Amino acid sequence: MGDINIGILGCGTVGTGVAKLLMENSDIINARVGSKLHLKYVADIDTKTDRGITFEKGVFIDDAAKLINDPDIDIVVETIGGEGIAKKLMLDAINNGKHVVTANKALLAKHGNEVLGAAAENGVDLAYEASVGGCMPIIKSIRESLVGNRIESMTGILNGTCNYILSKITDDGSEFETALKGAQKNGYAEADPTLDIEGFDTAHKLAILISLAYGMNINLDDIYVEGVTKITPMDIDLASQFGYKIKLLAISKNLEDAVEARVHPTMIPCNNLLSNVNGSLNAITVTGDAVGDMMLYGHGAGMMPTASAIISDIADIARNLKHNATGRIPLLSFQQKKIKSIPILPIDETRTNYYFRFFVKDQPGVLSRIAGVLGNNDISIQSVHQKGRKSGGSVPIVMLTHKAKEASVKIAMAEIEVLDIVSDKPMLIRIEDEI
Amino acid sequence: MGDINIGILGCGTVGTGVAKLLMENSDIINARVGSKLHLKYVADIDTKTDRGITFEKGVFIDDAAKLINDPDIDIVVETIGGEGIAKKLMLDAINNGKHVVTANKALLAKHGNEVLGAAAENGVDLAYEASVGGCMPIIKSIRESLVGNRIESMTGILNGTCNYILSKITDDGSEFETALKGAQKNGYAEADPTLDIEGFDTAHKLAILISLAYGMNINLDDIYVEGVTKITPMDIDLASQFGYKIKLLAISKNLEDAVEARVHPTMIPCNNLLSNVNGSLNAITVTGDAVGDMMLYGHGAGMMPTASAIISDIADIARNLKHNATGRIPLLSFQQKKIKSIPILPIDETRTNYYFRFFVKDQPGVLSRIAGVLGNNDISIQSVHQKGRKSGGSVPIVMLTHKAKEASVKIAMAEIEVLDIVSDKPMLIRIEDEI
Repeated sequence: MGDINIGILGCGTVGTGVAKLLMENSDIINARVGSKLHLKYVADIDTKTDRGITFEKGVFIDDAAKLINDPDIDIVVETIGGEGIAKKLMLDAINNGKHVVTANKALLAKHGNEVLGAAAENGVDLAYEASVGGCMPIIKSIRESLVGNRIESMTGILNGTCNYILSKITDDGSEFETALKGAQKNGYAEADPTLDIEGFDTAHKLAILISLAYGMNINLDDIYVEGVTKITPMDIDLASQFGYKIKLLAISKNLEDAVEARVHPTMIPCNNLLSNVNGSLNAITVTGDAVGDMMLYGHGAGMMPTASAIISDIADIARNLKHNATGRIPLLSFQQKKIKSIPILPIDETRTNYYFRFFVKDQPGVLSRIAGVLGNNDISIQSVHQKGRKSGGSVPIVMLTHKAKEASVKIAMAEIEVLDIVSDKPMLIRIEDEI
Repeated sequence: MGDINIGILGCGTVGTGVAKLLMENSDIINARVGSKLHLKYVADIDTKTDRGITFEKGVFIDDAAKLINDPDIDIVVETIGGEGIAKKLMLDAINNGKHVVTANKALLAKHGNEVLGAAAENGVDLAYEASVGGCMPIIKSIRESLVGNRIESMTGILNGTCNYILSKITDDGSEFETALKGAQKNGYAEADPTLDIEGFDTAHKLAILISLAYGMNINLDDIYVEGVTKITPMDIDLASQFGYKIKLLAISKNLEDAVEARVHPTMIPCNNLLSNVNGSLNAITVTGDAVGDMMLYGHGAGMMPTASAIISDIADIARNLKHNATGRIPLLSFQQKKIKSIPILPIDETRTNYYFRFFVKDQPGVLSRIAGVLGNNDISIQSVHQKGRKSGGSVPIVMLTHKAKEASVKIAMAEIEVLDIVSDKPMLIRIEDEI
């Protein structure tokens, strides 16, 4: 049984999890893989803090270069995160002919074409199952299980922090800020939660997925991103009265000559399985022309679920090494020469159903003025409701629309916002009935 | 780009689907796999009936031997089904050095050790993703994605026919026979539905899964199997009043020195995602020590979902052929020499919560007599309910129990059944609160 030598860069939560799993489950991993996965080095600038692991002598080091330059190391696992030193070390490892495993979605979404290009040039595997959806095997599913399908759409809850916060608001009726503080207290949100709550983390993951699913280069810049900070308990309550839940979704649709790719709070029907995905859990539905709808569900983050996904990548690479089959699966799912530049549809061109909520003066004629603006902008109203409590002389009016174009909605919202009968910024939430 | 030559045995629903997908999506499949998957033969005794496909001249043949003996054929796809000719042809193909793909769960559950042994001896790949869960990549997930996990349990809805029937009874309150006829009319049940409704098909799938998950030889015989034919609208209605749904589940638990493996109708809490899996859809939850709970959901049968899973197997084998990496993943997930004989716990040893429903005479003292029998057999009652309508002088009494041993429950039921106050066979449904 040939040994495969592994080095882990970074011993934070994820790095510690990978080391633990490699050590504690080595019997079962080796029995499945047929090679001994040997943890040779774990490198971190802090080797003093106790990680709850007893490393063999010489394994836990503070010198990343030693790890990367060791000719015995076969696989480098990058768990440092961020784009600075992580990127440099990853490129150094690749240039040294090491295979690389990473969970670094930000790095891949922003510099993926560069690092994957370097991997291709150096003939090494670069695996990143843990970068999207934690333990859910969404990347393997797209690259391998759905290989016979034209992927038509993907809809995912890909950020546990946002899902936890929205679930909390739904269950307790708490305000966003309260729910966020609770999430931070319980370890579901970072001290600086911007990446999560503003939707950027979800967008990073979507950028990776659309590239794999549709055979295009990674393109983060053109993905529309809107976070969850403006969602109120009132909107969640109203949504439920109409049979919807509000989730932060990563949505993409394959339009053949273009791709829709957007991240925003979305109303989805309560009977959709995704609306029953609560707390910090993640899920993604992929629709293929052969499989129809297929869903994966699981822990999208956390020490051990992420470590599990990283171990699956390590095992894939170890199996390739054992059989001399590096590059067996193309880095971006499609053979490099088949990858196309497919544009992302600008959000203004998107057509969806909408939920609008206005605070208006409680007086006659209000409805006709708002409806007039919508009608002038080619937005057709499906239903109007006066629901919810009066607040400071104003009442909430809710409208659900038929499919309308985002550009028209933007113009209409700007016109309605400045009407003298409207006392607050209009709220707009997109509805997806058919996902 | 090297061509991989494929032959399909059988051109029924699944064989036709595989041929269609190979032909219609060849551009996208080849762009991903990097080899041309070439459909050389489709063999069926009936080459006259129109399958809605235009085969190239010489592809559609009635001579299976020609296909199996053609030295150009790399991969044989068996879609005949059953255990007779399918097994013979599969073994012939393996002995001819062909790699084999099959969806034949009955064959694998009953003769898997033999055919997989033949594959190992001949150094060929034998892939069977489509044998369990249709398009859901459950086999790939266990063998590859969860490679770092000790799998603790699996709970699955693995038969679309049963799930369709139970969903129908739940939605419409129809009797079992009516729901079955509806399922047959709508193509969700065979003319002879025994394999499905008696739970055997689910047991076949569970036999394959426990082998892969726990590293044991395939053992169908010791799996406890109970079908859905006795489930009444009344039980489904009562279950919902207690916050449960009734599903036909494949349940397995890893007890380390033994494995629980059983198939029976089960009450599960309404807030469990599995209870929201309706119609002919399938789903499975796998719990691993690192990932926690992970769920897959999708179409468990049907022409194109099954074909999609078969194509993923073909692609895996084609990628192995391209890189000379046959045998890269062990046939039964673990390296052959690591596979153990792990016994399946006899159903009598199982401990679960139970739902009992008795029809009893509406007279004083009834409850104390039944409770007495249960108490004498060490079965502790959690709650008692007189619910539902009187029928012919009898009233239904429902009891939910704490955890009890199946052997004791059997004895108690036999004693209760012959009491003069009991007018009908007692109904027993196992409850799983913690899956």
